[in-house]
Amino acid sequence: MQQHAIHRRAPGHEEGEHEDCGYGTEMPRTVSDVPDDPAFVFDLDGTLVDSVYQHVMAWQRALDEIGVGLAVWRIHRRIGMSGGLLMQAVLREAGRGVPKDVIDQAKALHGQYYAESLASIHLLPGTTELLQALDELQIRWAIATSGQPEDAQPVLKLLGRDLDSVILIDGAQVPYAKPDPHLFLAAMSELEVNPHDALIVGDSIWDMLAARRAGALGIGVLSGGYSQAELEAAQAFRVYNDPQDLLDHIDELGVRIPRQS
Amino acid sequence: MQQHAIHRRAPGHEEGEHEDCGYGTEMPRTVSDVPDDPAFVFDLDGTLVDSVYQHVMAWQRALDEIGVGLAVWRIHRRIGMSGGLLMQAVLREAGRGVPKDVIDQAKALHGQYYAESLASIHLLPGTTELLQALDELQIRWAIATSGQPEDAQPVLKLLGRDLDSVILIDGAQVPYAKPDPHLFLAAMSELEVNPHDALIVGDSIWDMLAARRAGALGIGVLSGGYSQAELEAAQAFRVYNDPQDLLDHIDELGVRIPRQS
Repeated sequence: MQQHAIHRRAPGHEEGEHEDCGYGTEMPRTVSDVPDDPAFVFDLDGTLVDSVYQHVMAWQRALDEIGVGLAVWRIHRRIGMSGGLLMQAVLREAGRGVPKDVIDQAKALHGQYYAESLASIHLLPGTTELLQALDELQIRWAIATSGQPEDAQPVLKLLGRDLDSVILIDGAQVPYAKPDPHLFLAAMSELEVNPHDALIVGDSIWDMLAARRAGALGIGVLSGGYSQAELEAAQAFRVYNDPQDLLDHIDELGVRIPRQS
Repeated sequence: MQQHAIHRRAPGHEEGEHEDCGYGTEMPRTVSDVPDDPAFVFDLDGTLVDSVYQHVMAWQRALDEIGVGLAVWRIHRRIGMSGGLLMQAVLREAGRGVPKDVIDQAKALHGQYYAESLASIHLLPGTTELLQALDELQIRWAIATSGQPEDAQPVLKLLGRDLDSVILIDGAQVPYAKPDPHLFLAAMSELEVNPHDALIVGDSIWDMLAARRAGALGIGVLSGGYSQAELEAAQAFRVYNDPQDLLDHIDELGVRIPRQS
């Protein structure tokens, strides 16, 4: 898989003309470069599925077991970043070094405890309706999650989708997860969309940071438990409650819903 | 128990002089009215003890069982208000009426699931040190929680205290819990402190609202998972990470620590 977003080429543009169009190297573009509608890249946990708090509690149990007592709110504020960064951050906050094998043990315990909580995890309000609406409007979308494939699979099942019908980029497919931009760049590459024309929807400030680094607009949702002010401070362009609220205001994002006649 | 804060009387003031000194009826006072140090009233869950997320998950399980699917972040943002108000708010957000016996069932399930999670609940960083420091400085403090006595008892045990050595006002002792001011007024009454001279420390916007309605200053802590901006918007006078951070900056609150010689 390519790790840089590839370029949507308008008629008359020569191959390679806009080769290096990442963050900080923006090139002028013309009206004909712009697609009719933006494409969407969705974070998974806390954005499409109501699983952030289960991840938080799974990490708390895992950290407790390796003897790292850390207040739960500090774990909550780290959910959505890569598991490795999360461990690094929480261990620094807990003020202690932990050997690599113990870190690996904590990651494995988190995966186990999270899997045990799957029965209590539901889609967020409007997730099914939003994705269905995008499909009907022939607007392309993808999912990009810092999580591991085994965490994402059960959620696809909740969505009633499988890997053949969904573009899903997970933490195992890229060198670095959020807040690095790799996941979103890979998703936009698969969607064949220019970052200028992508909207990245996420619940955490790590999504907003990665979206900005990927050169795309970040859209926040409150459903992961971050506040509106935190998401706005991380440059969320708009903030909605959840997928239903986003769908109810999707015209604000430049999506044209054909008028019912 | 009295439900209005009683008045600290300075020499020369006649009995009853300041009888009705609640919110909105402030009376002038003189230098001699002001005690040397403020008194503290602490919320419990999310302020002294790291139990908010366990309460959230217990409510989620309970609501799931009575068939009220509600996104977890919406429960999180209601923790700290009275159980009755919480149920009222979540049922309105879920858009459905539920018979009283089913609501009672959900409350009972919440209590049961919360009790099951007690082993994973720890004091927040600095709680023991902060309360000890206040004791050493002979600064009075109390605890006021919307929770029920059976939820508060195990936390007192974590604190190494019992009801004989702590002023604890719980939801069963007053007509209305937070965001009504009754809990804090009752605590200040027990402390024999004027609301002008009390600092109310809490993690939720319900604490800040109840503090304001009780006529006292609200101090926020982030340890319940609310953001700094949310607490400040609810008029928190200062916001600290947790009890340790508050202790490290206690001079900002007008508490005089005698200089070590």
